[in-house]
Amino acid sequence: MAKNFTTRAENYSQWYNDIVKKADLAENSAVRGCMVIKPYGYAIWEKMQGALDKMFKDTGHVNAYFPLFIPKSFLSREAAHVEGFAKECAVITHYRLKNAADGSGVIVDPDAKLEEELIVRPTSETIIWNTYKNWIQSYRDLPILCNQWANVVRWEMRTRLFLRTAEFLWQEGHTAHATEIEAQQEAEKMLNVYADFAEKFMAMPVIKGVKSPNERFAGAVDTLCIEALMQDGKALQAGTSHFLGQNFAKAFDVKFLNKENQLEYVWASSWGVSTRLIGALIMTHSDDNGLVLPPQIAPIQVVIVPVYRNEEQLNEISVKVNILVQKLKNRGISVKYDDDDSKRSGWKFNEYEVKGVPVRVAIGPRDLENNEAEVVRRDTLEKQTLSFDTLDEHIVNLLDEIQNNLFQRSLEFRNANIRKADTWDEFMSILDNEGGFVLAHWDGTTETEEKIKELAKATIRCIPYNNPLEDGKCICTGKPSNQRVLFARAY
Amino acid sequence: MAKNFTTRAENYSQWYNDIVKKADLAENSAVRGCMVIKPYGYAIWEKMQGALDKMFKDTGHVNAYFPLFIPKSFLSREAAHVEGFAKECAVITHYRLKNAADGSGVIVDPDAKLEEELIVRPTSETIIWNTYKNWIQSYRDLPILCNQWANVVRWEMRTRLFLRTAEFLWQEGHTAHATEIEAQQEAEKMLNVYADFAEKFMAMPVIKGVKSPNERFAGAVDTLCIEALMQDGKALQAGTSHFLGQNFAKAFDVKFLNKENQLEYVWASSWGVSTRLIGALIMTHSDDNGLVLPPQIAPIQVVIVPVYRNEEQLNEISVKVNILVQKLKNRGISVKYDDDDSKRSGWKFNEYEVKGVPVRVAIGPRDLENNEAEVVRRDTLEKQTLSFDTLDEHIVNLLDEIQNNLFQRSLEFRNANIRKADTWDEFMSILDNEGGFVLAHWDGTTETEEKIKELAKATIRCIPYNNPLEDGKCICTGKPSNQRVLFARAY
Repeated sequence: MAKNFTTRAENYSQWYNDIVKKADLAENSAVRGCMVIKPYGYAIWEKMQGALDKMFKDTGHVNAYFPLFIPKSFLSREAAHVEGFAKECAVITHYRLKNAADGSGVIVDPDAKLEEELIVRPTSETIIWNTYKNWIQSYRDLPILCNQWANVVRWEMRTRLFLRTAEFLWQEGHTAHATEIEAQQEAEKMLNVYADFAEKFMAMPVIKGVKSPNERFAGAVDTLCIEALMQDGKALQAGTSHFLGQNFAKAFDVKFLNKENQLEYVWASSWGVSTRLIGALIMTHSDDNGLVLPPQIAPIQVVIVPVYRNEEQLNEISVKVNILVQKLKNRGISVKYDDDDSKRSGWKFNEYEVKGVPVRVAIGPRDLENNEAEVVRRDTLEKQTLSFDTLDEHIVNLLDEIQNNLFQRSLEFRNANIRKADTWDEFMSILDNEGGFVLAHWDGTTETEEKIKELAKATIRCIPYNNPLEDGKCICTGKPSNQRVLFARAY
Repeated sequence: MAKNFTTRAENYSQWYNDIVKKADLAENSAVRGCMVIKPYGYAIWEKMQGALDKMFKDTGHVNAYFPLFIPKSFLSREAAHVEGFAKECAVITHYRLKNAADGSGVIVDPDAKLEEELIVRPTSETIIWNTYKNWIQSYRDLPILCNQWANVVRWEMRTRLFLRTAEFLWQEGHTAHATEIEAQQEAEKMLNVYADFAEKFMAMPVIKGVKSPNERFAGAVDTLCIEALMQDGKALQAGTSHFLGQNFAKAFDVKFLNKENQLEYVWASSWGVSTRLIGALIMTHSDDNGLVLPPQIAPIQVVIVPVYRNEEQLNEISVKVNILVQKLKNRGISVKYDDDDSKRSGWKFNEYEVKGVPVRVAIGPRDLENNEAEVVRRDTLEKQTLSFDTLDEHIVNLLDEIQNNLFQRSLEFRNANIRKADTWDEFMSILDNEGGFVLAHWDGTTETEEKIKELAKATIRCIPYNNPLEDGKCICTGKPSNQRVLFARAY
């Protein structure tokens, strides 16, 4: 079918842009780096939000909302934090416009200059820990387990829809604890929530691990992450969870009276995932025909298209379809019956294929006679003609099957693309010819890590959980190493 | 009970602040005018969002997301619009910080000045209509029925938690239509959605009407509104829906080919409600003991408190309560069993009363023996001892009754506080002594409206729907008038 799609083989990057555009997910706005998330793209985000929000609440978290603006001085309180974010801050300096004296339009009113500049939050640790200071006196006030759904701004110079935008939507959890171990366990717990979400809802296999010191979040003691592999062999960091130690408590002087009646600094974690996940979703499953959505994240799970020549036929089909729609809805399936008269069925088939709707059902006059319907699954594009009587049962099972198949397919691809390299040449050869993850020895220094990044454009994605210890030599310096770490070129 | 509450009679304004603080709804942040919405306050907002979002979707709308930032030049395109918002804009002028040369901290990097300043959105008509320009070519692309849930910023000088804050959360619907009548009907439809939401969920009676030209949204042809009455006799605008005509289409040159193949400007509506509704909710129902929540908006509808002297008693109570909890959950009721051992039952009774939980159930050892429980409804504070066997049934009915009672109570109060004034003295006397809404004749000019505002501190809240025509004389100028309009002092 001619869809005017660039194929992945031709130009992966253009293929990605085509999917985002043709599936109507998002577009660039008039404001550099800020995207417009279109209704269909936003519906996917709502599905993600719904599932994640439930998981957060099931693990004892509550939502709250903290200010969009952060006083400049707050950012500076934690040294590593300001170092990490200062270069990409949107800065508010004035609070009023006025008419230009020459009538040429509105200008910034110089009399409305702020005493202290405000930063549009790039992340909220500072404003939240300044708030927590007033919420915490004793161990009885702990833990605090807050999350917020919010927009954040990081002034990126090179942006790509969903993957890297100046403004993006995300959630950020910020928790406060009485003990170090509890804060560490919280960070781990939420990493597991993210991994479960990625695998069970997005059907996207992830590797859990710990970031090297150089790749840590600015202000964290430890950063945990989930790393996914895209179809072009590049890695994508899909979520991070940070153990912050007492860094922010110290920066904002947040102490509590422990059970022994002694003052102690509070322990912290923070964790977040963003609309970047939509980019990851696209690049994990989609094909040269368009978007492919796992049923658990699909705004429309089943679309039903009538094929007819006259109104009488449409009416007969509709009678039958409405029963099916009701049955599917009763089973909690989101279904759309597209009987729009202004579009041809062929156009619709193509449209829903491009938009990645997991199951398409088509019913024509002959199907009616035979009490059948044609069912096409989006993941494999296989067609089946099935009895109408058991169609709802069949579709429920098919959705499960598609969800599982997408996960298994991605898992096999991912596993087939984890390779070991023992020398620099092997390392470069894998990166240049095959891509994917490379397990290789590293001498443990930031200096070497940066050198490898410079030479190979690859970074340490993580030190995987349960990483086996093994003596070896650093692929770059030849110095001794006791474990391989996971490298990749990454988004 | 001593709750350290200021009563409404003593100081209404302080009473409001006490409720917000003691019910743990929100607090001021370190950033002037920006609030922190605390978990319990945010949970109320989530209930509001959930109900409204469903109503929007049921009326055919979809969610999307548009940029936080608006180029300064966009604001200026619609003359009335920029006039209305220029004086309260947060302006971004730079995109980077850097370390001060003297090591004193971070400063704004003068080399990172934006060519054109960006405004943090005070409302999104301009950025959205600039986007719609690319979405609309022909009548087939219409209508567009988008909503977004977002934060907005208006630099208010005098702020009050929920009622008036520099940053607030809201939803803004922005629709595009092929005909004038369709856009007008959309604006009306959404005003009706707001009124239904206010009355059915918030149990807050509202008067639907049209704003006078002077009180219109900046850029609207007509502004429809719902007006509620607070317990202190002041009015509160709870939601607005605007018919924008072709103003923004003209400002952003958005045309479509109509069915006659002619180019025409697109017609528009926009509509919004915000976290201000939480302020309205507080001031409609709460009493001198704390917050009172209508069941439809309460994050916790029923709280169950065990009263016990030892662990054995608690265990026995818990066995029984767990059955009740399950029964209530099965009926879709949100219930909390508070068996926290570190707090006394008396403390809990007070806590949930202050937080406005609609129904409190208490069970002690004697209740167990008698197979009974004590049930207290928050709206009237009435106590009843009831058989355990039919408790779930009873609670379901009681929640309905509370919802209805709150609405009826507010409706009676509101209706008793709509008065007619035929002279200036009557008008002032009602405003000064009784408050509430005043129906009075007005000569229809903005000049008189402003004069009344200056002299009486009262504004025209709206010209109510189905307002009867009636000859009379303007209370201020004595000039002829053909209808009364609704005045009040307002938040």
